[in-house]
Amino acid sequence: MRSNYLARLRTRLYPVVFQNDTFAGKLFDVALLVVILLSVITVILESVSYLNQRYFTQFRNMEWVYTILFTLEYLLRVWVYPKPKRYIFSFFGLVDLISVLPTYLSLFILGTQYFLVVRVLRLLRIARIFKLTHFLKEGRVLTTALRASLPKILVFIGTVMTLVIIIGSVMYVVEGAENGFTSIPKSIYWAIVTLTTVGYGDIAPQTPLGQFLAGLVMLLGYGIIAIPTGIVTVEIANVNRQPDNPGLSSTALFCSNCLKQNHEAGAKFCNNCGSPL
Amino acid sequence: MRSNYLARLRTRLYPVVFQNDTFAGKLFDVALLVVILLSVITVILESVSYLNQRYFTQFRNMEWVYTILFTLEYLLRVWVYPKPKRYIFSFFGLVDLISVLPTYLSLFILGTQYFLVVRVLRLLRIARIFKLTHFLKEGRVLTTALRASLPKILVFIGTVMTLVIIIGSVMYVVEGAENGFTSIPKSIYWAIVTLTTVGYGDIAPQTPLGQFLAGLVMLLGYGIIAIPTGIVTVEIANVNRQPDNPGLSSTALFCSNCLKQNHEAGAKFCNNCGSPL
Amino acid sequence: MRSNYLARLRTRLYPVVFQNDTFAGKLFDVALLVVILLSVITVILESVSYLNQRYFTQFRNMEWVYTILFTLEYLLRVWVYPKPKRYIFSFFGLVDLISVLPTYLSLFILGTQYFLVVRVLRLLRIARIFKLTHFLKEGRVLTTALRASLPKILVFIGTVMTLVIIIGSVMYVVEGAENGFTSIPKSIYWAIVTLTTVGYGDIAPQTPLGQFLAGLVMLLGYGIIAIPTGIVTVEIANVNRQPDNPGLSSTALFCSNCLKQNHEAGAKFCNNCGSPL
Amino acid sequence: MRSNYLARLRTRLYPVVFQNDTFAGKLFDVALLVVILLSVITVILESVSYLNQRYFTQFRNMEWVYTILFTLEYLLRVWVYPKPKRYIFSFFGLVDLISVLPTYLSLFILGTQYFLVVRVLRLLRIARIFKLTHFLKEGRVLTTALRASLPKILVFIGTVMTLVIIIGSVMYVVEGAENGFTSIPKSIYWAIVTLTTVGYGDIAPQTPLGQFLAGLVMLLGYGIIAIPTGIVTVEIANVNRQPDNPGLSSTALFCSNCLKQNHEAGAKFCNNCGSPL
Repeated sequence: MRSNYLARLRTRLYPVVFQNDTFAGKLFDVALLVVILLSVITVILESVSYLNQRYFTQFRNMEWVYTILFTLEYLLRVWVYPKPKRYIFSFFGLVDLISVLPTYLSLFILGTQYFLVVRVLRLLRIARIFKLTHFLKEGRVLTTALRASLPKILVFIGTVMTLVIIIGSVMYVVEGAENGFTSIPKSIYWAIVTLTTVGYGDIAPQTPLGQFLAGLVMLLGYGIIAIPTGIVTVEIANVNRQPDNPGLSSTALFCSNCLKQNHEAGAKFCNNCGSPL
Repeated sequence: MRSNYLARLRTRLYPVVFQNDTFAGKLFDVALLVVILLSVITVILESVSYLNQRYFTQFRNMEWVYTILFTLEYLLRVWVYPKPKRYIFSFFGLVDLISVLPTYLSLFILGTQYFLVVRVLRLLRIARIFKLTHFLKEGRVLTTALRASLPKILVFIGTVMTLVIIIGSVMYVVEGAENGFTSIPKSIYWAIVTLTTVGYGDIAPQTPLGQFLAGLVMLLGYGIIAIPTGIVTVEIANVNRQPDNPGLSSTALFCSNCLKQNHEAGAKFCNNCGSPL
Repeated sequence: MRSNYLARLRTRLYPVVFQNDTFAGKLFDVALLVVILLSVITVILESVSYLNQRYFTQFRNMEWVYTILFTLEYLLRVWVYPKPKRYIFSFFGLVDLISVLPTYLSLFILGTQYFLVVRVLRLLRIARIFKLTHFLKEGRVLTTALRASLPKILVFIGTVMTLVIIIGSVMYVVEGAENGFTSIPKSIYWAIVTLTTVGYGDIAPQTPLGQFLAGLVMLLGYGIIAIPTGIVTVEIANVNRQPDNPGLSSTALFCSNCLKQNHEAGAKFCNNCGSPL
Repeated sequence: MRSNYLARLRTRLYPVVFQNDTFAGKLFDVALLVVILLSVITVILESVSYLNQRYFTQFRNMEWVYTILFTLEYLLRVWVYPKPKRYIFSFFGLVDLISVLPTYLSLFILGTQYFLVVRVLRLLRIARIFKLTHFLKEGRVLTTALRASLPKILVFIGTVMTLVIIIGSVMYVVEGAENGFTSIPKSIYWAIVTLTTVGYGDIAPQTPLGQFLAGLVMLLGYGIIAIPTGIVTVEIANVNRQPDNPGLSSTALFCSNCLKQNHEAGAKFCNNCGSPL
């Protein structure tokens, strides 16, 4: 009887914990979102030494509250999911585990101040909540466009990496250690800082020739930023143009004969079966 | 009799104060624009301590002239507007009130040097004047495009915020307080400075691992700027392509014969079936 | 007789000096280009105090050679041009005059070291030479696109100016003079440096609240750069799509009946007169 | 007999060394890629004085291993290629030679620490390997787009160079040597640093007028970055739209019945007249 009751409870809890199309499911997600955000804010504020000295006990207590809540939620998910192993070794299952482990480990391991920063990865848990909402379709447009531009972007990044290594080596020779270009890795770091137009100024060329070359690198960086922008823009436009995209018009119809989608604007005949549209 | 005269005056003043299609209305707007700009320039120059010490009295007097003019204008608007309460609690009504209050309050409250900066919000009053001009339609294209890209931009900003928090936390661990990354909030600040390619250089990684990670962040920031640009470009192109856009003609109609849409501006005959539009 | 000879010479020299479709005209332009570039390089190198101390006499002599050449050229242009006054008061006529005046004036006025920099404006004279070449059509595409985007860009710049003044005023209050934000103009300067992602780091927020606000400004600046890029991209695409653009296909035909150009891709009937294409 | 055997070997080795459509060819390329990357990493790490002092002997030995391998490969390529001279004086032939020369020369020439950096050019050899892979077509899209935008980009760069020289000269006069603008070349360097939004902050305007002008330059730089982006975006879109582009199908033909072009990839019937393609 009791196991029967538990089985029913498990079935009932599944849509609450893993979906959000019921009221209870939405409530669960909102509550989780709030706890996650509070816990991340706590981690961030805890790192401010001024606040940490003052409110050390409060931070520790709050952290234990979050950890126990997340632990209960984790156990609930493991119990409720039809195939627990699959959940445990899924991406979000591992993120859920990593979200609670550091606090428990801090009981046994000393000097884990930096180690606790891992808790900031709780932020990734928000992604699961958003995956269920209508923001997903916007994200999907971007993801599709980025995936389509990936090969071109890889070629671009490969070219930039080659450029940056060659520029870094040249500047290492031209400026030398006395002007801050103490090694090729550091010169490559400078080349990235310059080419991406970040420009910290912690390392900057001092010799006329170095400044001349740096000027060329800057103009180059200023120009080549156009390339990824162009690639991504064209791909977003492509995604937008396809009729299964929610941003598009409803005049993109099915062929009533062969059900082919995606007919060209202005097409009068289906280009798959030849019957009139 | 007299109240009758006042009622007529009120009716006559309305188009002068709130519209700009008459000569008097245009004159009123230009005069207002000049006074607003002068008053904002005064606030800005007043903050320069060198000038403030020299021309303290002049600045104070000019400020009182502007304040009295704006007060008269405010009372006029309240009186002239058919439903005064609605004006008073409208956005521009509140901006108009905020534009004059600080000066009066400075009579009663001491040490309000910084408080007076609020007067710079008078700039927002210019928006009302421009809302009446032909610049509006250009602004509307941009506003429409931005509103259409908002959901995608929000997804993008959410991703960037998550990235920036995780990057900031990692760099806090890698670099530590001795290299300026004294807390996670400060590291997040550094991550924003770097990812947006601003690069002040007040905080910069010193360890080889930190510089390597910073290089990755820069390349990432250099790449992801392509995303909002792509989104906005595609939406501006969409707005431009739509026939109700003022940048396109209003003759974009259906052909009554073959129902073809999107006819070229100025077209007299349908270019699909040849029948007159 | 002699004046007749001079008149003939004048007519013959016109295409040499003002056009470039003859061999002599091209030669004249190339020679002029070389002298302009040499003279600008001289001005630039002259400003390097190390070089100036060494080669002071050489620089002065070269400068006089250029000045005399440009003076002869200027007199030739005045003499050859059919309506000399029109040339003298044209844009390029004034630039030509400004190119030679500083050197003569330096004979009478002492301490004109900085004044001589005006000679760098000789660079503008190159524009005339390029106006005659095939680079013009590329430049025209850009100019057309920029002109078309101007009203939108103006709205954008107006918004950015308003933003920058308000942000600057807020940061002046938040950070105050002790952190380098000594006046509102300086704070506005900081706001521009930050919003445009230049980020010198000579003024940088020190308070947590200031750094938080600065982070928002950076993200804003990172986002709004998408707007002018979007505007210009769409306008360049528009210019490119028009058939009188050399970058375009040759399928854009004339209507054989009414000679209307610019028919839509796929049009079967002229949308001006209704006759088949 | 033996020369016959060698000739056969030569013929058999050609596809291994110069192509990658056989298994042996692929293996050769992967092995080469690994050695090139290892050798470049060695050059980079060697420049770190901390590592160089510790592992000097190891670095030198590894370098000789790479050099001997590359030398053998070079001799093999010369021997295998049908017209050796053509290979030796080709771009990649020269790069291959430059990859090995510095190490041998370092035996005879002393103090060549900086000279050895030339070995980093081995990176260019990777380009040959990638030229054979499917990344090529992505690279070709970018190359085609960049070549098409070249004339417009040149006009743009010419304008930027003129701007930068004029801005640099003006700032040299406004700020002067006492604020770091010691010469026009240095001011031009500052103008490039600012216009490209790099913003090191090693040279920054100090006078109010200088800061005002710098603000204008920044806004200008912020605006004109839109231009190359716009140019490249439009050209990438053009390349993407053309049917001979590998990103689009090769079925883009004319309809033999109505001559309509630009049929969708995979279309079997003309969508204008319904006849089979």
